[in-house]
Amino acid sequence: MRAVLLLSCREQKGIVATVADFIYRHDGNIVDADEHTDFENNLFLQRIEWDMEGFRVPRDAVADAFRPIAERFAMSWVLRFSDDVPRMAIFVSKLDHCLHDLLWRQRAGELRAEVPFVLSNHEELRPVASSFGIPFHVHRFTPETKAEEEQRILARLTEERVDLVVLARYMQVLGSAVVDAWRSRVINIHHSFLPAFAGGRPYHQAYARGVKVVGATAHYVTEQLDEGPIIEQDVIRVSHRDSVEDMVRKGRDLERVVLARAVRLHLRHRVLVYGSRTVVFE
Amino acid sequence: MRAVLLLSCREQKGIVATVADFIYRHDGNIVDADEHTDFENNLFLQRIEWDMEGFRVPRDAVADAFRPIAERFAMSWVLRFSDDVPRMAIFVSKLDHCLHDLLWRQRAGELRAEVPFVLSNHEELRPVASSFGIPFHVHRFTPETKAEEEQRILARLTEERVDLVVLARYMQVLGSAVVDAWRSRVINIHHSFLPAFAGGRPYHQAYARGVKVVGATAHYVTEQLDEGPIIEQDVIRVSHRDSVEDMVRKGRDLERVVLARAVRLHLRHRVLVYGSRTVVFE
Amino acid sequence: MRAVLLLSCREQKGIVATVADFIYRHDGNIVDADEHTDFENNLFLQRIEWDMEGFRVPRDAVADAFRPIAERFAMSWVLRFSDDVPRMAIFVSKLDHCLHDLLWRQRAGELRAEVPFVLSNHEELRPVASSFGIPFHVHRFTPETKAEEEQRILARLTEERVDLVVLARYMQVLGSAVVDAWRSRVINIHHSFLPAFAGGRPYHQAYARGVKVVGATAHYVTEQLDEGPIIEQDVIRVSHRDSVEDMVRKGRDLERVVLARAVRLHLRHRVLVYGSRTVVFE
Amino acid sequence: MRAVLLLSCREQKGIVATVADFIYRHDGNIVDADEHTDFENNLFLQRIEWDMEGFRVPRDAVADAFRPIAERFAMSWVLRFSDDVPRMAIFVSKLDHCLHDLLWRQRAGELRAEVPFVLSNHEELRPVASSFGIPFHVHRFTPETKAEEEQRILARLTEERVDLVVLARYMQVLGSAVVDAWRSRVINIHHSFLPAFAGGRPYHQAYARGVKVVGATAHYVTEQLDEGPIIEQDVIRVSHRDSVEDMVRKGRDLERVVLARAVRLHLRHRVLVYGSRTVVFE
Repeated sequence: MRAVLLLSCREQKGIVATVADFIYRHDGNIVDADEHTDFENNLFLQRIEWDMEGFRVPRDAVADAFRPIAERFAMSWVLRFSDDVPRMAIFVSKLDHCLHDLLWRQRAGELRAEVPFVLSNHEELRPVASSFGIPFHVHRFTPETKAEEEQRILARLTEERVDLVVLARYMQVLGSAVVDAWRSRVINIHHSFLPAFAGGRPYHQAYARGVKVVGATAHYVTEQLDEGPIIEQDVIRVSHRDSVEDMVRKGRDLERVVLARAVRLHLRHRVLVYGSRTVVFE
Repeated sequence: MRAVLLLSCREQKGIVATVADFIYRHDGNIVDADEHTDFENNLFLQRIEWDMEGFRVPRDAVADAFRPIAERFAMSWVLRFSDDVPRMAIFVSKLDHCLHDLLWRQRAGELRAEVPFVLSNHEELRPVASSFGIPFHVHRFTPETKAEEEQRILARLTEERVDLVVLARYMQVLGSAVVDAWRSRVINIHHSFLPAFAGGRPYHQAYARGVKVVGATAHYVTEQLDEGPIIEQDVIRVSHRDSVEDMVRKGRDLERVVLARAVRLHLRHRVLVYGSRTVVFE
Repeated sequence: MRAVLLLSCREQKGIVATVADFIYRHDGNIVDADEHTDFENNLFLQRIEWDMEGFRVPRDAVADAFRPIAERFAMSWVLRFSDDVPRMAIFVSKLDHCLHDLLWRQRAGELRAEVPFVLSNHEELRPVASSFGIPFHVHRFTPETKAEEEQRILARLTEERVDLVVLARYMQVLGSAVVDAWRSRVINIHHSFLPAFAGGRPYHQAYARGVKVVGATAHYVTEQLDEGPIIEQDVIRVSHRDSVEDMVRKGRDLERVVLARAVRLHLRHRVLVYGSRTVVFE
Repeated sequence: MRAVLLLSCREQKGIVATVADFIYRHDGNIVDADEHTDFENNLFLQRIEWDMEGFRVPRDAVADAFRPIAERFAMSWVLRFSDDVPRMAIFVSKLDHCLHDLLWRQRAGELRAEVPFVLSNHEELRPVASSFGIPFHVHRFTPETKAEEEQRILARLTEERVDLVVLARYMQVLGSAVVDAWRSRVINIHHSFLPAFAGGRPYHQAYARGVKVVGATAHYVTEQLDEGPIIEQDVIRVSHRDSVEDMVRKGRDLERVVLARAVRLHLRHRVLVYGSRTVVFE
C-alpha cells in the first residue's frame, strides 16, 4: 500500500525538507515526488508518494501525525491511500462512445475505480451499462422539475458514496447546487480545444470556421459553462475533405482518449486545481 | 516547365473529362491532379498540373485556348507556369524568428520565390535582411499618417511587381485599402490556434486560461482581424511548468513552421479560397 | 449507389482523359478522384468514384464496358460498388482491446462491413464476440497440425465469403498457404513503428533501447514477418517515467486507432499496394 | 544565481530528506526538484535546483559541504551553477540547417552557451559561422591521418575549454579516442527515429520501406554508431506523395527542433545518462 499527499501553500523555505523528513523519520520510503512553484502567485504545490510498508505510523494515524506540519505551513492538503478504490459515477445521454470506452478501461484495469452506477436522462444506453454489469438509473426532468430532480441526484451520489462524477457526453448543464457541492470532483469532456468553440455544436462551428485541427478538452465543471480548469487537451488534423460528420467521427477518438487520460490522472491523485488552472503531476 | 490550372465552378457533369481532354488533345501529360466537391455549397474545385514539354499549345496561347472551356462552365480560374518565379515581400516589426526562417528557406530552395525587399515599421531587423542580401525599407507612420503611408506601401508593391505579401510578425493592422487590393495575397501568422485567443498577447491569454496546448495559425488577411481563411495550423503541448516566456519560446518554433508551410503551399499554387475557408491541395 | 475504380498501369498520356470521358460519356458524375504518379517506377495509380444515379450503363455491365479501356492501357484494376458490403473476419488470441474496438466501430457505423465471425486459437474472447452477437470459432493447432488446421481456416473463409481478414493481435504466424491465397487482403497490427522493433515483445525492446516515442503499424501480411506494405502508422511520446506496462497501456490506444484507420481505408477502397509500398488515397 | 545538483545512487531510504535538509539547513530555497526511481535496477536519480541568494555556504564551498552526503549514499553527482556559461563547439560538414538554427537560437537567448568555434571537415559553411561572428576551423583528414587529426581536435577542445560538442550533421564517425574522452558530452542528430534506419541515407531507407512517418533522434555518441543513449525524438507524417527529397525537406524541420531541444536540455543540466538510457527532467 502507498500513501499520496497532495498539498499547496504559500511558497516558503523548508517545505520540501520538512515533508521529506516527516516521511523519512517514520521509516517511509518515497517512491515518487513532484512539485511546482508558481512564482507569479507565490504558491508552492507538491505531490509526494511513499510506501507504507514499514512506515511506523499506522494508516489511520497518518493524517493526525501530519497535521502539525500542515498547520505550520498553512497548507491545503489531502491524503490518500492506494487501497482506497474511488467510486466513480458516469453520467451520459445518448452517445455511447465515451461510456463504452470508460467501462472497457475500468474492466481492463486502466482506471482504478469502482463504478456504482451509470446515470442518464435517457433510456438508450441501458444495454451498454448492462453488458458491463453496471446498474443504470434514469433521472429525467423538465426545466420546472430540474432543481428538484437534481436534489435526488445529489442524494444518490451521497448514498452511493461516490467520489468522482464523469460527464461522458451528458447533454445537460448541471445546476449550481450540484456544481457547488461537487467542485473539482466533476469532470466533463467538451468536443473542442477550448476556449475555441465553447457551447453547442462545436464541430459545426469548427467546420464553418475552416480550421485545420479539431480538439477535445477534459475539464472540471464550474458555474461558467466550458470555463472550468482544464485537465487535458488534444487535437487531430482535419482538412477540407472532412465533412462535419467526418469531424464528429475523428473527434470521437479524441474525446475517448482525452477523457480517459483526465479521469486516470484524477483517480491517481495527480491533479491539483488552483484558481482557474490545474497542475498535472504526470 | 509545367502548367498549373486552379479552378472552381458550380458542380456539374463533365468538368473533369473536359479539362483532362483539353490537356490530352494537345499532347499534354498530366502529372498531378486533385479535386474537391463541396456538396453543401454545390461547388467544384480542382487543381491540375501538366508537363508543357511537347504540349502543342505555346505557353502564351494556353489561356486563350482554355478560355472557351472556362466560359462554358462559368469557372473562376488562374493559370500559372512553373518558370514564373513569384515575388514575395516580407513585412516585419521587431521579432526576427519568422523573417530569419523565411529567408533561410528561400536561400535553401524550399520556397521558390524572389524576395525583392523586406519592409518594416522599425529599423531593428535591417541587419537580418542585409545578411541575406535583401533590401530593407522602413515605412513608419502614426495613426494620422497611416492612410497616406499605406498608399506609399501600395505603390512600392506595384512598382516591385510583388505577387505575395507575408506578414512575418508585422505588428500593424493593414488598412482596408491594402486589404481590398491584396485579397487572398497577404498571409499572416497569428500565434494561437484560432479562433482561440484572437487579438493581442495570445500566449498571455493561453497562460491565464491554463490550456494544455498552444498553437499557431497562418491565414489570409481580411478586414476582420484574425478571421481570414485559414491555410495551416498546428499545436504543441504545454504544461503548468511552462511560463508565458516558455510558451513564447515554444511558439516561435511553431510559428516558423506553420508560416513556412502556408507560404510554400501558396507559392506552389495549392491553395484555393472559397468563402471563409480554404481548400489545400497537398 | 456509387462506383469506385482503383487502377494502376504504366505512366502514359491520356489515361485521366480517357477514364473521365468513359464516365462522362455515360452520364456519370465524378464525386471523388485522386491519382498518383510514381516517376521513379514510371507507374500511374488512380482512384475514381462516381455516382451511379443516372449512369447509362447498368451496374452489372460496367466492368465489361470498361474492359476495353483497361486493356488498351494494360491496367491492373478493380471495380467496386458502394452497395456491396464487404465481409470482414477478425482473428484474435487473448487480448481484447482491438477486437472490442473494431466491433464497437462496426456497430457504430464507422466500418462499413459485416463481421461473419471472430476466429481465435483460444477461448478467452468468446464473451466479447457474444456481447456483440458475433459467432466465435476456435481453431487450435500445434506445430504438427498447423498446416492441416489452416486448410480448415481457408475453407471457412471461402464458405463464409470473407473479403478481408483482420489480425487484431492474433499471436500466430500465418502459414504460406494462407498468405499466398489472401495477399493484400489480410491486415495485421504490429505494436511498434516498424521497421523498428519487429518481432516479439516490441514494448520490451523499446523500453530497453530507451526510445522517447513508441508506435504502432498496420500493414498487409506477407511471407516476411512484419515486412508487408504499411497502410498506417502513428506514435505516442513516452519518457523515462513509463515502465513497460505503461508503454503497453499507451500502446493499446495507438493500436486501436491505427488498426481502425487502416481497416476503414481498406474497406473504402482507398489503398493500392505496389511493390512493398502502399498508396493511400485519403 | 542558482545551483543545480544532479545525482544518482542505489535506491535507499532518506535520500530526498537528507538532500532537502542540506539545502534548508543552509537557508537555501528549493525552486525545482524532480526525481526518478528505476525499481528494476534499484536506482534513484534526482535533479534539485535552489536559489543561492541567502544560501549560507559560499559558492566555492558547496561541493565540499555536500561531499559527506554524497559519500554516505555512494552517489554519482555533479554540481552546476547558473552563472557558469557552458562552452559549446559545433561540428558540421556541408549541410547548414542545424548550424544556422543553433546559432540563431544561441543569439536569441534560447541556448545559454558560448560558442567558441565551429569545426568542419569542409570549407562550405564558413560564411554561416562568419555571419554570426563565430570562428570557423577546418580539420580535414584521410583515413590515414584521422587518428592524428583527431588528436589535434582533442587538443583544441581542451584549449578552448569546451564543455559540450554538438554534431550538427557532421558526416564523420568520431574515433574512439574522442568518444572515450567525451562520453555523455557529444550530442549527435540522426535523421531517423532510431533504432529504425540507423546508418547511412535513412530517408532513402524510409522511402524504400514505405513508412508513413519519418523521424529524427538526438543522442549521446558512443562507440556503437547510432546506438548511444537517446535524449529526444520526434516524428512527422509522410505519404506516398512524398519523394525522398520531400522527406529530406520535412526532416530538416524535425532535425533542427529535435537537436535544439536536446542541446537545451543538456545545457540546463536536465539529462542524466544511465546505462544505455537517459532520464530527462523536463
